[in-house]
Amino acid sequence: MNLSPIRFVLVDTSHPGNIGAVARAMKNMGLSDLALVNPREFPHPEATARASGADDLLDRARVCATLEEAIADSGLVLATTARAREQHFRVLEAREAAGRIVAESRAGGGAVAVVFGTERFGLSNEHLLKAHALLRIPANPEYESLNIGMAAQLIAYEIRLAARTAQPAPVRDTPLATPEQMERFYVHLEQVMSESNFRDRTRSGTHLMGRIRRMFNRAELDANEVNILRGILTAVQFKRRRAGEGQAGEVSSCNEPQNPTQP
Amino acid sequence: MNLSPIRFVLVDTSHPGNIGAVARAMKNMGLSDLALVNPREFPHPEATARASGADDLLDRARVCATLEEAIADSGLVLATTARAREQHFRVLEAREAAGRIVAESRAGGGAVAVVFGTERFGLSNEHLLKAHALLRIPANPEYESLNIGMAAQLIAYEIRLAARTAQPAPVRDTPLATPEQMERFYVHLEQVMSESNFRDRTRSGTHLMGRIRRMFNRAELDANEVNILRGILTAVQFKRRRAGEGQAGEVSSCNEPQNPTQP
Repeated sequence: MNLSPIRFVLVDTSHPGNIGAVARAMKNMGLSDLALVNPREFPHPEATARASGADDLLDRARVCATLEEAIADSGLVLATTARAREQHFRVLEAREAAGRIVAESRAGGGAVAVVFGTERFGLSNEHLLKAHALLRIPANPEYESLNIGMAAQLIAYEIRLAARTAQPAPVRDTPLATPEQMERFYVHLEQVMSESNFRDRTRSGTHLMGRIRRMFNRAELDANEVNILRGILTAVQFKRRRAGEGQAGEVSSCNEPQNPTQP
Repeated sequence: MNLSPIRFVLVDTSHPGNIGAVARAMKNMGLSDLALVNPREFPHPEATARASGADDLLDRARVCATLEEAIADSGLVLATTARAREQHFRVLEAREAAGRIVAESRAGGGAVAVVFGTERFGLSNEHLLKAHALLRIPANPEYESLNIGMAAQLIAYEIRLAARTAQPAPVRDTPLATPEQMERFYVHLEQVMSESNFRDRTRSGTHLMGRIRRMFNRAELDANEVNILRGILTAVQFKRRRAGEGQAGEVSSCNEPQNPTQP
């Protein structure tokens, strides 16, 4: 996943801690290109502390005097805003914007810039006018108080998800139980229920074994797990049969899917 | 947009500032139900400062001694994790999880709980075993360092977006089994296993009851289903006890979650 053409630009940031928080948020999602326009204090120990291991991004951050300088080599420029009422701008929500950002970054048209304003006032109108579109994070209209670190985190996350096309298959140490293994398990369970004179009185209105199958199927049991359950069933049967003879037995689960304890 | 049945539960939080950051993250996305399990320091001025206007959530936050207490009235329980390698759990990515959370919150089956662990170590294995599934935020595999506030922000954001797309609530005829009902079931199952002299010989290398809990938790059993399973366990016990006396008995499942057959 190459996200290197995607740049976050922080303009007139007041608190150095926020610069560190943005660096950390970026690195968490695999972004690395940070530009700082006229930061009040940088470098600063608080920025390094809040970066928490993402200080390599701070070391490589480019400090610029103006926004123009920071986006000089950019293609698409998006400006973040908390205001919903911007007139005559194209406004993209974060998720849609992330799709655009990733697509543009792969098109080879220079860096794609996402610009963040000051903690108190956001971006000036002059700054907004540098952007192709505004990026807005949907939030609670009665309380929109996303700080710059949180906003950067959400946007970086959306970029990562947009960039992820092919997902690796999940790692599974044991294969799912085969249909045949599941069948044998259900036969075994039904046998134990029958031997125990279990009678269903649920008012569910569905066939009991169908209900039981659905719940175990939802669990997506692997072969070992079915063997554990069948081992328990066998132990129950063994114990019950021996009980009449006054003997105590011991049964254990086995771990060979190809040779489960037969009912 | 009614998100009130969705609860964030913070377990053993070390830094009060993080509690405030989570409250702010929640309120930004319209969430309001916060529970704190055994916080090291709360209330605390730093929590209030970081909440930055979301102090009403802190005022209403419920402080609990245990996770069990915080999720006692819950239906679906999801545990956040940074580890990708959890075996035998159902693992949902944040976006998919948010869809489930919203759907369940609209199904009327009790609070939906999202549980966050400590800043340093996350959730213990014991805590994970209380959850139906794990919630994972996709991130840079070479640097996963999301703090609890950022994680809460991302999940709250996904919940808000999932809630915005009007989804039909799934029809659930019976609520999910409560954590207490699940506990009683596990105690009952373990008792039957013990009475049957069941001995584990799986080479899974994990504690057997933990393995069993994970597979049944994945099934997301409802109250009736737990009663069916407990009825089977009771039948097995009844039959075995009577076997020694040469009598045949009959046991049936019951359908009253408030009065399950006691082990």
